[in-house]
Amino acid sequence: MASIKKFLIGEAISSEEEQHQRLSKKIALPVFASDAISSTAYATDEILWVLVGGAGAGVAAFRPLLPIAIIVCVLLAIVVTSYRQTIMAYPSGGGAYIVSRENLGATPALIAGSALLTDYILTVAVSVAGGVLAMRTAFGFSRSWAVPLCLICVFVMTVMNLRGVKESGAAFAGPTYFYIVMLLILIGTGLYRIFVQHVGPIPDHILSEEAVHLSHGTKYMSIFMLLRAFSSGAVALSGVEAVSNGVPAFEKPESKNASITLMWMGGILGSCFLGVSILAVHLKPFRGEADGNGLGLMAEYLYNGKGVMFWATMIGTFLILILAANTAYADFPRLASIIAKDGFLPRQFFNRGTRLVFSNGVLFLAGVACILIVAFDGDISKLIPLYAFGVFTGFTLSQSGMVVHHFKDKEKNWKVSAVINATGAFLTGLIATIVVVSKFTEGAWIPALLIPFMVFGFRAIGNHYEKGRQSTHVEPGYWPTRETHTLVVLVGSINLGVIRGLQYARSLHPDRLYAVTVATDDEDRKRIEQQWLEFNIPIDLEILYSPYRELRKPVMGFLDELDAKYSDNIITVVIPEFVTSWKTQWLHNGSAFALKASLLHRRHTAVVSVPTHMNIDIK
Amino acid sequence: MASIKKFLIGEAISSEEEQHQRLSKKIALPVFASDAISSTAYATDEILWVLVGGAGAGVAAFRPLLPIAIIVCVLLAIVVTSYRQTIMAYPSGGGAYIVSRENLGATPALIAGSALLTDYILTVAVSVAGGVLAMRTAFGFSRSWAVPLCLICVFVMTVMNLRGVKESGAAFAGPTYFYIVMLLILIGTGLYRIFVQHVGPIPDHILSEEAVHLSHGTKYMSIFMLLRAFSSGAVALSGVEAVSNGVPAFEKPESKNASITLMWMGGILGSCFLGVSILAVHLKPFRGEADGNGLGLMAEYLYNGKGVMFWATMIGTFLILILAANTAYADFPRLASIIAKDGFLPRQFFNRGTRLVFSNGVLFLAGVACILIVAFDGDISKLIPLYAFGVFTGFTLSQSGMVVHHFKDKEKNWKVSAVINATGAFLTGLIATIVVVSKFTEGAWIPALLIPFMVFGFRAIGNHYEKGRQSTHVEPGYWPTRETHTLVVLVGSINLGVIRGLQYARSLHPDRLYAVTVATDDEDRKRIEQQWLEFNIPIDLEILYSPYRELRKPVMGFLDELDAKYSDNIITVVIPEFVTSWKTQWLHNGSAFALKASLLHRRHTAVVSVPTHMNIDIK
Repeated sequence: MASIKKFLIGEAISSEEEQHQRLSKKIALPVFASDAISSTAYATDEILWVLVGGAGAGVAAFRPLLPIAIIVCVLLAIVVTSYRQTIMAYPSGGGAYIVSRENLGATPALIAGSALLTDYILTVAVSVAGGVLAMRTAFGFSRSWAVPLCLICVFVMTVMNLRGVKESGAAFAGPTYFYIVMLLILIGTGLYRIFVQHVGPIPDHILSEEAVHLSHGTKYMSIFMLLRAFSSGAVALSGVEAVSNGVPAFEKPESKNASITLMWMGGILGSCFLGVSILAVHLKPFRGEADGNGLGLMAEYLYNGKGVMFWATMIGTFLILILAANTAYADFPRLASIIAKDGFLPRQFFNRGTRLVFSNGVLFLAGVACILIVAFDGDISKLIPLYAFGVFTGFTLSQSGMVVHHFKDKEKNWKVSAVINATGAFLTGLIATIVVVSKFTEGAWIPALLIPFMVFGFRAIGNHYEKGRQSTHVEPGYWPTRETHTLVVLVGSINLGVIRGLQYARSLHPDRLYAVTVATDDEDRKRIEQQWLEFNIPIDLEILYSPYRELRKPVMGFLDELDAKYSDNIITVVIPEFVTSWKTQWLHNGSAFALKASLLHRRHTAVVSVPTHMNIDIK
Repeated sequence: MASIKKFLIGEAISSEEEQHQRLSKKIALPVFASDAISSTAYATDEILWVLVGGAGAGVAAFRPLLPIAIIVCVLLAIVVTSYRQTIMAYPSGGGAYIVSRENLGATPALIAGSALLTDYILTVAVSVAGGVLAMRTAFGFSRSWAVPLCLICVFVMTVMNLRGVKESGAAFAGPTYFYIVMLLILIGTGLYRIFVQHVGPIPDHILSEEAVHLSHGTKYMSIFMLLRAFSSGAVALSGVEAVSNGVPAFEKPESKNASITLMWMGGILGSCFLGVSILAVHLKPFRGEADGNGLGLMAEYLYNGKGVMFWATMIGTFLILILAANTAYADFPRLASIIAKDGFLPRQFFNRGTRLVFSNGVLFLAGVACILIVAFDGDISKLIPLYAFGVFTGFTLSQSGMVVHHFKDKEKNWKVSAVINATGAFLTGLIATIVVVSKFTEGAWIPALLIPFMVFGFRAIGNHYEKGRQSTHVEPGYWPTRETHTLVVLVGSINLGVIRGLQYARSLHPDRLYAVTVATDDEDRKRIEQQWLEFNIPIDLEILYSPYRELRKPVMGFLDELDAKYSDNIITVVIPEFVTSWKTQWLHNGSAFALKASLLHRRHTAVVSVPTHMNIDIK
């Protein structure tokens, strides 16, 4: 077991080595920006999916595409500018959760936290679904392979992330840059062929039957449908906050490096998204539900078939989407551990594993993402409506927090900064509203319900820990008076384990010592009484009669009697247990285990297991 | 929780009351014979299913039906006669397991035990599937409801059986007699209409399209197909052994009452099976895969439509099949507990619950039956091939055992008895072989593989317990020398629980006492050192540095050092734990739990949990 763990997860890393695990800008860009940049692989498609598939607008669907893309890019510029200020103000890592907590209070912070945690999970599900779709575009395998392939991808990524962040960064840098280069070549080739060679839209014979049918749609696009299409496009902004969460992972000077990385990310994301959208306006990549993605369709057309360049583009797309999921693997456990440290999530999320990553968070993220993939059939278009609400809720709270921050700290140029952040907060808030309203019935209701529910859960956990802290708080100098020790040894028939347990208890010289056995009938009683005499055991034996053939009730009854007799009494129940290997342990101590669970909940009662090791195993 | 348990399971019953839980013959018949009698509801159908559906013999399929039915009845007479002798020889309950164990040895007994346990599980699955089919015949609901309805039936029966056997008997007597009466009326009506009113076969317009298609089959019936059909008919004998297993549950004189009940059962089963088969020969109830059962088809035809009599017959069929499953609920846990008492099954199966039934056996039976129902799609015809092999293996071993018994005891007329049992053993052995060969590819391979596998498992468990007994055996007079007690208190930051744990350990006056804490960094270390000073704790603190942020490794390392220093040493690790309610317990002691699991496997190490109760809960 240990060696399997080592093989999969790698050697342990000590805390001292942590410092060296910092990321250079070149490595940080793929690690933190792959999520944002990867959305260029599907954002354009998803806008069109609403207008062509949903609204049935046919060729007319391509008219609002460019305006929508430009609005998204403007929004991107505003959000990036806003987050640059956050990075400068919070060099120790300032995601929406921290900025909200510092400036807006606990509840807004928990809303932001819930929104972000939800979105990290969706990032994994959406990106993996998108990546597998890219593979399907290239290989043309059946739709029914989507879910199993998605689950395999999640498994592989989980293992990689349990190995640690630096190795992840190094392994993922190549593919991200590869995608960016392939996408830029595609956009360049496209623009050349469209504007110089005057290539027209993709002809019908290349499209699937369903796509041709959709291209003949002539329905009217309502404002509502345009807003819904815009909401789909807005997912391109997801992942922009990743850099600001991860500032401490950058090489020094952290803030400056993170800020530069963020700008690069914004530039690449904006220009690629715009580029792909311009290609789409001219090439009109109609696609049916069972078809591949639009990027693949355009690449196949522009490169005259499924040649090397087409394959390279699709492989790059697959890889960057897998890396996008990796952003969430870096950020989800980080945020969960911050929330857990604040006492709003179980402490298990705060414990670190052997490789400096927050293992529990990684495993939780992977588990929920798998559930989503199965529930939504590994279909990216079904997952997208769940996605943007959380992203923009996080943006809104983060930027509102920054406005408050500027008013509090009044640093240089704080008025300009406040205006920038206020604009951002207003716009992203507006978009969050547009998303939840326009996509409510399509799935946006899920995060809209889930986020308040999570906040409620966080608060409940927080209250519980706080009350626990209060109820167990002691002032310096506190020292309880000595209590009398009563030891009760549970005895079945006499064997090595029981004798050891009796001697263990006796040699502790407790104030009072009892050996207790439970007999179901007279025969049982006589047998144990006789054994007791034979062994000449120097401890009095109490025989409890169990008319209900139960162990728990008579033992509890006996302890209650003891408590009634001696009120100053702490009772320690000694349970002799047999220990074998994990292969045969289940054959032993079944009743001891159930009894221990009951005793743990009894006041003023300690339980001690005295193990006797048996070196026997099923052959 | 306790009140829900009480509501579902009922009040506890003491051992003294057990005597009064005995069954009269009138009640015992439905309890123990419903399984055997219920097979009249499907045995004829299953013979025809092989010849019509499998062999495609069309109308010719009805020719061998009566000969097969007669052979089955002769076999039934032989088996009943044989089991009467078993009941007389084993008044304390003599199933195949006990008779084999007493006369043939451990391995044959375990083969018989495995065969019977397998068959009890199949009884539940087959009977419930048959019962739901009867309901589908009456109501005509969709095939896709079969599995959910089967699972609901299993759930209800499980709850009823956890309540106890007497209440089951009383509740089930009515329906069994109701079914027998309804079936006799159907057979009487049928015989009258066929032989007096000269009613012909069911006309095509009443049959489904698939059934009409099947009725036109003209294929040749091979000997192999006839044997396969016979194997399906032989399932009618399943459940005959139930009475002999349950002798001690009868009113005194147990053997005599059980014997009379067995004869009644044989008579009712034989005549009803023969009666239904005669009706089928004349009415030719062809049925397709999606149709209802043959009994329903004949009832509908004979009673001129779905009137009161039809409904009563179908409801009776449903009820008796559910009761048939109940036979297994009575016998499976009984047999499992006998095998567990002999040390071949985990002791958990020997423990009785609060209501004198063997709860673990009941729950195990229900669980596996549910798996079978889901795996075989709740289809009785798919489950039947798995069924008969185990039944006849049990018969063969039981009767072989009786032969040996007669030779050993040489009671009055033992030679006649030996010949009867030898004949039975030979015939049932032959039939077990026919079943496994003719149905091997259809599912009989499952019990044929499973039974040896189970025997292997039983033996392995038996060996393990035996070695455990040997390795922990001590001779009278054994008393180990006193060991030195070293107590190690695990400490995090200081709170009420930790202080209590320290005082608990100190007041036991151990030979050596350590307080141990694990620090991840210097800050951690300084904090705990300062607290230690502030509280002026009279115990030296050992600070372990954990470069890997783990708890387990440094603690284990420290214990190893102690062991190396003091070899006479038993180490008791004191773990202060917080106890809340089950609603919030998961928020605490996560790391303590993992550590305890490790410590339990450490030699010479006892673990004591000192609980501090916190009366706080998530509101």
